[in-house]
Amino acid sequence: MISRLIDRIQKTNAPIVVGLDPKLSFIPEDMLRRCFEEKGEGPEGAAEAFWQFNKEIIDNIYDIVPAVKPQIAMYEELGIPGLITFKRTVDYCKEKGLIVIGDVKRGDIGSTSESYAVGHLGAVTINGKKYAGFGEDFATVNPYLGSDGVKPFIDVCNSEDKGIFILVKTSNPSSGEFQDRIVDGRPLYEIVGEQVEKWGLDSMDGAYSNVGAVVGATYPEMGKALRDIMPHAYILVPGYGAQGGKGKDLVHFFDKDGLGAIVNSSRGIIAAWKSDKYSDFADGRVGEAARAAALDMQKDIADALSK
Amino acid sequence: MISRLIDRIQKTNAPIVVGLDPKLSFIPEDMLRRCFEEKGEGPEGAAEAFWQFNKEIIDNIYDIVPAVKPQIAMYEELGIPGLITFKRTVDYCKEKGLIVIGDVKRGDIGSTSESYAVGHLGAVTINGKKYAGFGEDFATVNPYLGSDGVKPFIDVCNSEDKGIFILVKTSNPSSGEFQDRIVDGRPLYEIVGEQVEKWGLDSMDGAYSNVGAVVGATYPEMGKALRDIMPHAYILVPGYGAQGGKGKDLVHFFDKDGLGAIVNSSRGIIAAWKSDKYSDFADGRVGEAARAAALDMQKDIADALSK
Repeated sequence: MISRLIDRIQKTNAPIVVGLDPKLSFIPEDMLRRCFEEKGEGPEGAAEAFWQFNKEIIDNIYDIVPAVKPQIAMYEELGIPGLITFKRTVDYCKEKGLIVIGDVKRGDIGSTSESYAVGHLGAVTINGKKYAGFGEDFATVNPYLGSDGVKPFIDVCNSEDKGIFILVKTSNPSSGEFQDRIVDGRPLYEIVGEQVEKWGLDSMDGAYSNVGAVVGATYPEMGKALRDIMPHAYILVPGYGAQGGKGKDLVHFFDKDGLGAIVNSSRGIIAAWKSDKYSDFADGRVGEAARAAALDMQKDIADALSK
Repeated sequence: MISRLIDRIQKTNAPIVVGLDPKLSFIPEDMLRRCFEEKGEGPEGAAEAFWQFNKEIIDNIYDIVPAVKPQIAMYEELGIPGLITFKRTVDYCKEKGLIVIGDVKRGDIGSTSESYAVGHLGAVTINGKKYAGFGEDFATVNPYLGSDGVKPFIDVCNSEDKGIFILVKTSNPSSGEFQDRIVDGRPLYEIVGEQVEKWGLDSMDGAYSNVGAVVGATYPEMGKALRDIMPHAYILVPGYGAQGGKGKDLVHFFDKDGLGAIVNSSRGIIAAWKSDKYSDFADGRVGEAARAAALDMQKDIADALSK
């Protein structure tokens, strides 16, 4: 699967992923009113608004970016109707040729992780027939439970040609509380990174592994160290834009060929229409603003990499 | 919320929680066939079978145990139909007076954790009205992202009178890979445990906090140390029975009054009808076998605590 992602990154010349993390406050009033009229002023209406909002963005970016990353928490917040929109979004993105990274951060003991892996990346077998639950291409995975929580995901990566990104160093301010603690003279995130590299050797797909890592854009120095520690792990980099990361901070996440990393932006793209920078689109042109912001981000990163 | 759980533990004299983690292989053939006939031989039929199976167990144990712990991964594996059964199970358990611990192991950066907290424990506000997504009483939370990933859950615990159990030392064989690494001369799980104790002081409810901890039955010595490090944290103890833990191993998870811990069993209760020990119920009497196994577990732990 990672070779498919790399192929799309090269074709679009855009090592970027759009985070489809809708919030009601991002949705133009008109769109929201129509959805509430159609489906009621409750979770069903809100979930319909998420869908319409996502669709407008997807339709405007699918040809210029390789991948999207819906954050399942935003959908789970609305309960079942939200999760139906999550699934519909995944399906529609795949129809459009986008690679879908399910930002689910799952992880549990072995037999339970297997259920998550099957539900998100694989297919459950019922009386000999297979049924995909959510059908993402990649999922994010939490490593706190160790190998037996991660291996079921790797098994599904191998059997179904899928991929995962394992949390190594997250972008949030308090990520250091446990991740930076010193173990044998080195921060824990380096120990986790070493393990990601080892796990990844069981699922190689070209120069890179289907087992990648999450390293926040907000910690560029750590990204540099982790790039060396995990030579076969693609790095998914959240925290660009709204969380503070900039293109020039990110060059060390990439390898010498400009591969090895894919940078996520969520709010900075999907809510661009509400920002001062894209005020031309302030009348609710969500999709056009998202396209403009994605192109600017592509340029910011390409410029940084060309230096 | 923790005071409500303690009250129910004292009334049933059973510091135990039944893990509602259905699998198709646990479901009697007759029940499965009926559900497939009614809803089709796919995820809908399987989800209906999970529901019928859960209902039979709930109807047979609700008066003798204080709480249940549905593991959401088992439901998520079936996609949307599975999650509809998860929600239906939560609702039915609450109707029956059971306290519901959603074993969801969620955790993300701050704003995202907030969505999970609202979706599972709180209620989303849409045009001034509130709607609960899944409506569990407690949720399990992964600490790897640190304070800003955990605090949104604590905020919801305070505003909605709910509770959480944070993963400290998990029951699986490879839990030590990261959790046991030595930081400043002490294992990481102790550092996490200390932080759980601190977080908990912001959500006290009687002698204990709404912020509890998960510590596996399979590591009794570590349970003893963590009981001292986290005097205000209730400990949710998975790994009893099928995973190897026994009542006598668990006494140090409890305080001197026999409180402070609640022990989970999943397979050992819900699939008891398939085990040699409960062969009297081997003709598919799932509920009666579950009741017998729950009563035996209650006795095993009560005997251990009385010594």
